[in-house]
Amino acid sequence: MTPFPFTAIVGQDQMKQAMILTAIDPSIGGVLVMGDRGTGKSTAVRALAGLLPKIRAVEGCPVNSPRLRDVPEWVDTAGTRVVQRATPVIDLPLGAAEDRVTGALDIERALTKGEKAFQPGLLAQANRGYLYVDEVNLLEDHIVDLLLDVAQSGENVVEREGLSIRHPARFVLVGSGNPEEGELRPQLLDRFGLMVDVASPTDVETRIEVIRRRDAFEANRAAFLRRWKPFEDSQRRAILDARKHLAGVETTDDTLRDCAELCIALGSDGLRGELTLLKAARAQAAYEGATRIGRDHLRQIAAMALQHRLRRDPMDDAGSAIRIHRLLDEVFGPLADAAE
Amino acid sequence: MTPFPFTAIVGQDQMKQAMILTAIDPSIGGVLVMGDRGTGKSTAVRALAGLLPKIRAVEGCPVNSPRLRDVPEWVDTAGTRVVQRATPVIDLPLGAAEDRVTGALDIERALTKGEKAFQPGLLAQANRGYLYVDEVNLLEDHIVDLLLDVAQSGENVVEREGLSIRHPARFVLVGSGNPEEGELRPQLLDRFGLMVDVASPTDVETRIEVIRRRDAFEANRAAFLRRWKPFEDSQRRAILDARKHLAGVETTDDTLRDCAELCIALGSDGLRGELTLLKAARAQAAYEGATRIGRDHLRQIAAMALQHRLRRDPMDDAGSAIRIHRLLDEVFGPLADAAE
Amino acid sequence: MTPFPFTAIVGQDQMKQAMILTAIDPSIGGVLVMGDRGTGKSTAVRALAGLLPKIRAVEGCPVNSPRLRDVPEWVDTAGTRVVQRATPVIDLPLGAAEDRVTGALDIERALTKGEKAFQPGLLAQANRGYLYVDEVNLLEDHIVDLLLDVAQSGENVVEREGLSIRHPARFVLVGSGNPEEGELRPQLLDRFGLMVDVASPTDVETRIEVIRRRDAFEANRAAFLRRWKPFEDSQRRAILDARKHLAGVETTDDTLRDCAELCIALGSDGLRGELTLLKAARAQAAYEGATRIGRDHLRQIAAMALQHRLRRDPMDDAGSAIRIHRLLDEVFGPLADAAE
Amino acid sequence: MTPFPFTAIVGQDQMKQAMILTAIDPSIGGVLVMGDRGTGKSTAVRALAGLLPKIRAVEGCPVNSPRLRDVPEWVDTAGTRVVQRATPVIDLPLGAAEDRVTGALDIERALTKGEKAFQPGLLAQANRGYLYVDEVNLLEDHIVDLLLDVAQSGENVVEREGLSIRHPARFVLVGSGNPEEGELRPQLLDRFGLMVDVASPTDVETRIEVIRRRDAFEANRAAFLRRWKPFEDSQRRAILDARKHLAGVETTDDTLRDCAELCIALGSDGLRGELTLLKAARAQAAYEGATRIGRDHLRQIAAMALQHRLRRDPMDDAGSAIRIHRLLDEVFGPLADAAE
Amino acid sequence: MTPFPFTAIVGQDQMKQAMILTAIDPSIGGVLVMGDRGTGKSTAVRALAGLLPKIRAVEGCPVNSPRLRDVPEWVDTAGTRVVQRATPVIDLPLGAAEDRVTGALDIERALTKGEKAFQPGLLAQANRGYLYVDEVNLLEDHIVDLLLDVAQSGENVVEREGLSIRHPARFVLVGSGNPEEGELRPQLLDRFGLMVDVASPTDVETRIEVIRRRDAFEANRAAFLRRWKPFEDSQRRAILDARKHLAGVETTDDTLRDCAELCIALGSDGLRGELTLLKAARAQAAYEGATRIGRDHLRQIAAMALQHRLRRDPMDDAGSAIRIHRLLDEVFGPLADAAE
Amino acid sequence: MTPFPFTAIVGQDQMKQAMILTAIDPSIGGVLVMGDRGTGKSTAVRALAGLLPKIRAVEGCPVNSPRLRDVPEWVDTAGTRVVQRATPVIDLPLGAAEDRVTGALDIERALTKGEKAFQPGLLAQANRGYLYVDEVNLLEDHIVDLLLDVAQSGENVVEREGLSIRHPARFVLVGSGNPEEGELRPQLLDRFGLMVDVASPTDVETRIEVIRRRDAFEANRAAFLRRWKPFEDSQRRAILDARKHLAGVETTDDTLRDCAELCIALGSDGLRGELTLLKAARAQAAYEGATRIGRDHLRQIAAMALQHRLRRDPMDDAGSAIRIHRLLDEVFGPLADAAE
Repeated sequence: MTPFPFTAIVGQDQMKQAMILTAIDPSIGGVLVMGDRGTGKSTAVRALAGLLPKIRAVEGCPVNSPRLRDVPEWVDTAGTRVVQRATPVIDLPLGAAEDRVTGALDIERALTKGEKAFQPGLLAQANRGYLYVDEVNLLEDHIVDLLLDVAQSGENVVEREGLSIRHPARFVLVGSGNPEEGELRPQLLDRFGLMVDVASPTDVETRIEVIRRRDAFEANRAAFLRRWKPFEDSQRRAILDARKHLAGVETTDDTLRDCAELCIALGSDGLRGELTLLKAARAQAAYEGATRIGRDHLRQIAAMALQHRLRRDPMDDAGSAIRIHRLLDEVFGPLADAAE
Repeated sequence: MTPFPFTAIVGQDQMKQAMILTAIDPSIGGVLVMGDRGTGKSTAVRALAGLLPKIRAVEGCPVNSPRLRDVPEWVDTAGTRVVQRATPVIDLPLGAAEDRVTGALDIERALTKGEKAFQPGLLAQANRGYLYVDEVNLLEDHIVDLLLDVAQSGENVVEREGLSIRHPARFVLVGSGNPEEGELRPQLLDRFGLMVDVASPTDVETRIEVIRRRDAFEANRAAFLRRWKPFEDSQRRAILDARKHLAGVETTDDTLRDCAELCIALGSDGLRGELTLLKAARAQAAYEGATRIGRDHLRQIAAMALQHRLRRDPMDDAGSAIRIHRLLDEVFGPLADAAE
Repeated sequence: MTPFPFTAIVGQDQMKQAMILTAIDPSIGGVLVMGDRGTGKSTAVRALAGLLPKIRAVEGCPVNSPRLRDVPEWVDTAGTRVVQRATPVIDLPLGAAEDRVTGALDIERALTKGEKAFQPGLLAQANRGYLYVDEVNLLEDHIVDLLLDVAQSGENVVEREGLSIRHPARFVLVGSGNPEEGELRPQLLDRFGLMVDVASPTDVETRIEVIRRRDAFEANRAAFLRRWKPFEDSQRRAILDARKHLAGVETTDDTLRDCAELCIALGSDGLRGELTLLKAARAQAAYEGATRIGRDHLRQIAAMALQHRLRRDPMDDAGSAIRIHRLLDEVFGPLADAAE
Repeated sequence: MTPFPFTAIVGQDQMKQAMILTAIDPSIGGVLVMGDRGTGKSTAVRALAGLLPKIRAVEGCPVNSPRLRDVPEWVDTAGTRVVQRATPVIDLPLGAAEDRVTGALDIERALTKGEKAFQPGLLAQANRGYLYVDEVNLLEDHIVDLLLDVAQSGENVVEREGLSIRHPARFVLVGSGNPEEGELRPQLLDRFGLMVDVASPTDVETRIEVIRRRDAFEANRAAFLRRWKPFEDSQRRAILDARKHLAGVETTDDTLRDCAELCIALGSDGLRGELTLLKAARAQAAYEGATRIGRDHLRQIAAMALQHRLRRDPMDDAGSAIRIHRLLDEVFGPLADAAE
Repeated sequence: MTPFPFTAIVGQDQMKQAMILTAIDPSIGGVLVMGDRGTGKSTAVRALAGLLPKIRAVEGCPVNSPRLRDVPEWVDTAGTRVVQRATPVIDLPLGAAEDRVTGALDIERALTKGEKAFQPGLLAQANRGYLYVDEVNLLEDHIVDLLLDVAQSGENVVEREGLSIRHPARFVLVGSGNPEEGELRPQLLDRFGLMVDVASPTDVETRIEVIRRRDAFEANRAAFLRRWKPFEDSQRRAILDARKHLAGVETTDDTLRDCAELCIALGSDGLRGELTLLKAARAQAAYEGATRIGRDHLRQIAAMALQHRLRRDPMDDAGSAIRIHRLLDEVFGPLADAAE
Repeated sequence: MTPFPFTAIVGQDQMKQAMILTAIDPSIGGVLVMGDRGTGKSTAVRALAGLLPKIRAVEGCPVNSPRLRDVPEWVDTAGTRVVQRATPVIDLPLGAAEDRVTGALDIERALTKGEKAFQPGLLAQANRGYLYVDEVNLLEDHIVDLLLDVAQSGENVVEREGLSIRHPARFVLVGSGNPEEGELRPQLLDRFGLMVDVASPTDVETRIEVIRRRDAFEANRAAFLRRWKPFEDSQRRAILDARKHLAGVETTDDTLRDCAELCIALGSDGLRGELTLLKAARAQAAYEGATRIGRDHLRQIAAMALQHRLRRDPMDDAGSAIRIHRLLDEVFGPLADAAE
């Protein structure tokens, strides 16, 4: 069923921006969306599915290989034509067993034909697309670990039941979580590229608009989708344009230095912070049509790239984004030249 | 066996009202009935089964598809005729395994014919009807999660044992629970549309009437059912009339604003509160034959739509409904114009 | 092996009375017998088996169906004759697996004939009889729950291994327990119809009589049974007479009011108390050959019907029966008119 | 391998007496031997195997049925002759699975012939003999429960894997335990007929004699056994004579009263105490060739029949036997007439 | 691969002596070697394998039966010749499953031929040799229990999967453990015949010699083994001579009395202490070529035979050996006549 | 996919040195790399794979046997030619089951051909190469134990499922861990040959260089690899030269004494410290082209060989390396003659 349109979501700009950036450069890594129940996290991810551009893939290939020569040797269901497919947005359903995630021995073929064949899992289906996990903080650690491991290496390695299989599994992991239901280990947090917080709007007009749109959508889905189609099309075009632009965006040494200094000043562990900062700023620049990364690009994405990488301060958590912005002002000077 | 008649239940008006509203508009969501042991929660749900109107469904379709073109492609047992069926009220029996809930690989066919076929579960049977779970607070969280997940998305997705199946599963979840036996997590509470409390009557005459009716029912079931048939028929007709009415009930901006303001004033998290308030009030209006939603409709259903969405107050829980009514008086003015 | 005769049990009158009442009206519900080790609880239940009257049942029917048309459609082992059978008294042996309790897929037929057949379990065997569970407070809660659930609904619903079976399972559950080994949850307690306490006799003569009879029984079983046969026959006839009588016992409004007032005064939760009180008193009246329920009947059975439904008093538990009798005196006036 | 001779055990008279009494009357129930490591508990039980008289049993019958008509209907391996067999002394090996204890589905026949046959377990083998469990306090409670349950009812009921089997399982359970490694629940203690304590001898001469015999036995087993054969034969004859005598031993009312008064005075729960006291005293009388039970017989066996049935005194446990003897003196007068 | 030579081990004399004694008389029982990591415990046990003399065994017999008539009836792989074999030194690998230890149903034959055959395990392989368990204090108690049980009874009894098998399993159990990683239960300690402590040498010259030999061994294994062969041969001959001598060593009553008095004075529980003391002293006497056991023999082995059988003293554990030697001086007089 | 070049890793000299030393002499044992998230531990190990020299191995041999006569007898897939292969660097993927690690029964062949064949696991693949375990401190202890056990003995012994297989498994275990996520038991620590700490660089220029290289690598992998190929080739040659040199490096008694004295002074348990110190210094000497081991070689590798073998000091852990260097200065005199 066609989901709620991405562009009809009221507010929640940080979350939408994070999703757009990973659509422009998937190597930024996963997105973690944290927020109370009822703030539309699931709706947003399902909305993303309707927005994403098509990909070209070999017909019948379970890992969506772009060219015939990329089809893994264990696949025997692929055709020879290359066709257009929707960008996969795969939902990890509650209670999906680990063997459905990674793929496993095809029991049916083992029993009926005596063959040891691999049956691809959700990680295969998600290749070149998105994998969505609701309530990621309720998942068992070893599954989250596995998902992030694969998301980072871009490869799914299955060593079980006598199988020794590997296939590409490059996808953006989108996780949603509720901070009241338990936290992720810092090690897992660090492996998400971006993190954004969402909250219910607190002013009456916004809330009325949210209910109005939702009620209209439920009452007459077809009419609602028709009305929002032009906005969806524009948004999709903007993403495709940014993708073309991306390789041409210049990265100066000043930008590299800005990234390193920000991370050192914030005391963020490891080097994933710098790299994410750099890539997200570059995607933002491409989205804005800029020819090189500027400080305003860094400014716009710094919080979502770094707030989950700070060492916990004895003071309130909620201060993470604020600490980052305060530092941006110190390092770059107060915000005066913001371009949009 | 024919259950106790819905209309012969003595008192318990909130619970009966909640069940009637979801019969008028199932998209309101599930009903949670909380109360001490022996307050007739199970009796009421089984009674509902006798009251609900018939549906039209394809003969032999395991998910009760209304039209031939709605039958899922994995179904091979459906006929071609559309017939009348009782609205399904499916009981989740104690100890039902997860595979019977979601459906699973049909082991018999796998073993005898070497085919990988899907055997639908209780979620399939409950499509377009009710799913009843007794002592929902004793269920394991992951099963409740799964039930609410499916109830909300209206779709059952099965990814296991090499199956990748989906089918519509639109039903109203009715859960009963005993507050002394443990609580539901707030996240689960929020996903029930309505919540009502039931308690044993405390005056002698009511209790005598309860025993008298129950004793008469057990002594001579047939005679008792004959006596209550006209009341059951009237109640069913009233629900069917309200359903026809529903789409024509007008929703003014004032009503949207009332919903938003109530929720903000009560500090209820998320936006599910507003939407439930709106829908339940609309169903109430339709039931009363009104042409548009009024404040008295909101007033009648506000407690059951919101009391489980309040942040816990350090003060006594029992105060939830009272806090809501106090606020209604503040926002709408004291109750003077109540219509019935 | 023929058990110890029911009528040869020395003392323990409450326990024997409770068992006789449920033999007259099984809808009173289960009996819970609580007492220290060595007080003859198991002996008493096994004794009951020798006392109970025969039933008429279809030959070979695994659920003891009384008429051909009552045989469930999944049964393929039943003959066509209706024969006399002993009332089943089924023992839930220590360590019986859940699938033997509820019934399960018949693995043998599945493996050898490729058929998915149901193999009935202990709940089927117990239909129209008794199910005995020793040390019920050591059973896992979910099994006790299941037993009480089925005992109350009178129907066993099996939803597992691809089976979807239901069959009548109307039986009286008799549980024995040792209060030193752990308690039952209040929710479970409430679902037993009657509860009695047993204790070792404390006077020498009674204890001598107990050992003398037991020693005689073990030394020469046949002679002992011969000696007690007339007592057993009389007891059985008295139960059969009371059953015929039962429907004709009049229930006045005064009795209904007495039941309600007693329960309210005692603060017993829910409405199961009243109904059990009413039914047990009616069975007692029938046993005594009375034409309507009197206050002395209520008086005789009030403690066993209500003591496990009182809210725990900060004072000593042992006071439950005493609190009930004190209240009976208050409400009915002190005991002067006791009939036997 | 022939074990160490029973009569060559140095000291440990209580333990040997308990074993002799249960060999005379197995209905006395199990024996529990408690003592530190290295006190020869295992040696003693294995020694018992060499001492016990032969039984007559149907050839090939897995439950040692004494007559053809006693062979259970599920047995298809029995011949038609009745032969002499050693009294079975079955050792419950460490780690024996529950299915080997109770018996289970014969997997081999199920797989190769498609038949559902019962394969008897250790309980079947132990019928009419002894079942020995080393370190009974380390066994899981549910296994001990099961063993005692069967030992008491004399019947093994198997309800699992689609089997519904019962067969006689009358045996004496001998358990040994180390009090330092954890205690048995009082409920389990009560179900052992007799309990004796064993300890290492503390005087040098006895210890020298123990090592000397043990060293001689290990050095030249055949010679040692030859030397002790006459003692073993005498002991066996004494047991057989006592068995013939047993039925003729008179039980006066005075004895019954003594049993009851002792148990009441000691505050032992339940009535198993009296019955065990009576039976053990009768077996002792038969062993001594007496024609009726006297107070000296009761005196000799009172401690082993009752010490594990006393309510724990806030004072030292070790006082159990002493409390019993002190009471015997009070009730019977001080010991003057002791016959042997 | 040929292990490090036993005689090339630097120091660790207690450990080497304990292993030599059990090679002379295996009935002394197991050896427990306790010490910090890196003290060469594993090396020593593997070294033992190279030292032990050959045994004569039936070709192909899985339990190394010495004569044709000793081959168990379930063995169908044995030939008819008696051949020479190395004394088995079996290593219990980390993670060996219980069924590999005890032996189990041969699944392959069950599946392919429908036969229920026994596949012998490590206990069978170790018959008449050594079974080595590294980090015995990390093993689960039930496995250690099982090993000691079999080691003591000399017989492996398997009652599972429908098998009822027994075979000789006489072996010396050698366990190594690290006192920092958890202790053995006293009951397990007591069942090891001897216990020795090992520690890293603390003087520089010894440590240099250890590294030098180890480095030389790793650099050129063949040359190193050649160099140590004469020492290994001498050691082996000395053991074989002592075995021949053993039966002829006289045991006087004075020695028995010494053993008993030492154990009583030390308060060691049970009687295993005396028997081990006696046997180890006799083996020591035989090793020295003495014709009867003297006090100096007792003196040499007292600590390793008794230190793990002392009741724990509130004072330091390390004092066990010292307490024993202090007592030896008290009882035997101070050491003046020591022979070697 | 070709990994990031080893020589392009910025800084992290200790880690690179440790890896180079084990490439020169694999008998040094495993390397444990401890450090915060994001410090490039995984990158470094994968980089190692690109650097290591080729080995000669029998075609198709699952354990990479160097000569035909080394192929284990259970292998039936090996050819007859000896070919060049990359040094195996095997990754233990998250969630690899134990049977994939050790190898197990080949289920496919068992089912289809009724043969009991061994399917080699990761330990077989890693023979003569590297086995990498990420987050080794999150692995279950029994798996780490198993890996270290095999790594040390050089042999994989499989005793399960009726298999009794052994094959060479000589590999260097490289583990990475995060000290914040839990520690390894001292017993496991001791069994790693070398341990190094890594940390994020803290100066801006280094961090800029890290991002610059990483960004360049991700942007144009081929170009980046081309640029670094000469450095990789030089590094590989240096390792090969050192290997040839190794056997010729002289070890004087002074060096042995230095090793022993350092270890005694540091109080490191056991003797593994000395041996590792000796071997790592010898490899370092060979790498530098020296003809004998000097104190400067010891100095360079002392911290990585010993810091994980010190007894924990009540003072800060971080002091381990410092304590070692302070001691080196005391024993050898202050550093003045350092050669490079």
